[in-house]
Amino acid sequence: MKNVTSFDVARLAGVSQPTVSRALRNLPGTSPATRAKVTAAAAELSYIVSDSARILSTTRTRRVAVVSEELTNPYYPELVEPIRRHLAERDLRAVVVTDTETASITLDVLADGSYDGVILTTTSRRSTLPRDLTERAIPHVLVNRVLDEPESHSCTVDNVAGMIAVAKLLSSEGHVDVGAVHGPVETSTGRERAEALQNALRDRGIRLRRSSTARARFGHDSGLSAARELLQTSERPTAIVCGNDVIAMGVLSAARLLGLEVPRELTVIGFDDIPMASWPLVGLTTVRCDLDSLASAGVDMLVSEIEEPGRAPRVVRIPVELMTRSTHAKPRDRS
Amino acid sequence: MKNVTSFDVARLAGVSQPTVSRALRNLPGTSPATRAKVTAAAAELSYIVSDSARILSTTRTRRVAVVSEELTNPYYPELVEPIRRHLAERDLRAVVVTDTETASITLDVLADGSYDGVILTTTSRRSTLPRDLTERAIPHVLVNRVLDEPESHSCTVDNVAGMIAVAKLLSSEGHVDVGAVHGPVETSTGRERAEALQNALRDRGIRLRRSSTARARFGHDSGLSAARELLQTSERPTAIVCGNDVIAMGVLSAARLLGLEVPRELTVIGFDDIPMASWPLVGLTTVRCDLDSLASAGVDMLVSEIEEPGRAPRVVRIPVELMTRSTHAKPRDRS
Repeated sequence: MKNVTSFDVARLAGVSQPTVSRALRNLPGTSPATRAKVTAAAAELSYIVSDSARILSTTRTRRVAVVSEELTNPYYPELVEPIRRHLAERDLRAVVVTDTETASITLDVLADGSYDGVILTTTSRRSTLPRDLTERAIPHVLVNRVLDEPESHSCTVDNVAGMIAVAKLLSSEGHVDVGAVHGPVETSTGRERAEALQNALRDRGIRLRRSSTARARFGHDSGLSAARELLQTSERPTAIVCGNDVIAMGVLSAARLLGLEVPRELTVIGFDDIPMASWPLVGLTTVRCDLDSLASAGVDMLVSEIEEPGRAPRVVRIPVELMTRSTHAKPRDRS
Repeated sequence: MKNVTSFDVARLAGVSQPTVSRALRNLPGTSPATRAKVTAAAAELSYIVSDSARILSTTRTRRVAVVSEELTNPYYPELVEPIRRHLAERDLRAVVVTDTETASITLDVLADGSYDGVILTTTSRRSTLPRDLTERAIPHVLVNRVLDEPESHSCTVDNVAGMIAVAKLLSSEGHVDVGAVHGPVETSTGRERAEALQNALRDRGIRLRRSSTARARFGHDSGLSAARELLQTSERPTAIVCGNDVIAMGVLSAARLLGLEVPRELTVIGFDDIPMASWPLVGLTTVRCDLDSLASAGVDMLVSEIEEPGRAPRVVRIPVELMTRSTHAKPRDRS
């Protein structure tokens, strides 16, 4: 007798396999109606969710490479940890690959038969690595950073919605002169967030003056340097929106060095909501990306690809939420 | 003709092999005199340092497992990164293993022939994993945390010297009522630092009252909870010394929540000097452990063990340095 798989449940319920997986594990991202439909289908087929390990019988090494180049950027350990957990739930083991060598060396490492699949977290917009993996038929997904032309399954956060929420907050507080320290243009997160912020501010009639914007690597020190310049110009912005939380912490450090009081004299907004952002010591107002949902969706996509390879690439966007803490306020009257 | 190795140079110069390796690569920790002696010996034998890859001809996979269970504790990525770099200099690739499973599963993973050696960074004081690796003749070193009974090559920081420096600082500032949030007793760092602090304070006639001390996991949130209790007692200490920087950041968060001004109303001291400690936003006074030296020494020991296995276990202690920043001050007069 053929074992019942999550794909059978998906077919009967008329939903995708990842939806089945998410619904049966009560993860966010499925409506109550969908969940009811999936549960009914699972009951009808006597499918139980603990079978999730068994259905991966096509895998061989049970190892998944998680490629990250920047573990000293606190964002990545926070993303890698739930990826590890969600892989472990499927009886797959995460092996973190942190090579900073060239893409070809990385490809050799990933394609040597050690791994059933690959999760890429720090891919640049024009990397050829995803295409190379596709050509070698190695199941993979991009999580966090995605490509300009989606050629692989990808999963990222809704950067546009995040920046609309930020622009609304700044508008409601009365800021009219806003600056930004964007992330690197060669990353999808850096580019998308910059564009999204520009558009969202323009729609609300708020200036984002060129002299008040900078690009920086995703790091504290680069955020500090960039902000130090922006904050010493004659027309200092009343708020700085940052490409991510770590850059924002650099901006907070710059404010501290320059003797500017946050938020009374300067509003600072981050993006990601890494745990450090919520520490009372920091209290950063930021856009929350649920890294557990991001990791879960990425692992779901990878497992689907391992089980049923070669489907058309999908791009999933995880919803975001504005977290208002203690680094934003109305601009001080300068007159 | 037999190739000249770093061991030949060491014998001729009358120093250890790691010292040769360090001296020839101009790394900190060797005196100019030693460096001159080593350089002369290397010249006499026509030994060149770029041979370091070749002398590792005994290795097979060129992969080294770096075992860390806590990548979301910011200390570990900061330690893993220089380990990765120093391994890469020897043409060895670091594979970070972050299993949080039981020791036996970890052993299977480490002993399956995938790795030439193992670097353990989060071993608890009574772990049997090092002994199991010894029994299977798998070259390994402990870096950062060590065992009660040194059965393997180990490399850690000089916790005693660090706490003496802290006690001197507190004494010179005039603190007489000091509290502490120690790390976990099952870790060597947690236990050694606690003992060292108690002894160093006692030698200077400073109280470390039991009601003002707590133990916490190495994390921000556990530091915060512990400090919140200590700081709400009737006899609040004027300074809190912490098991590591991340705990100290939790204590700073607790102070912020309770409206206590640091350092005017509370001195907070960390241990490790992770990069975040030096961010102007944080400005933590702490004990600096040079993680690059720690990583370099650990990799040197591992390479020696791979090349010439089975020597008696050594324990290397890396020197520390007090970094005085902005979280310490004289206690405020409470009278």
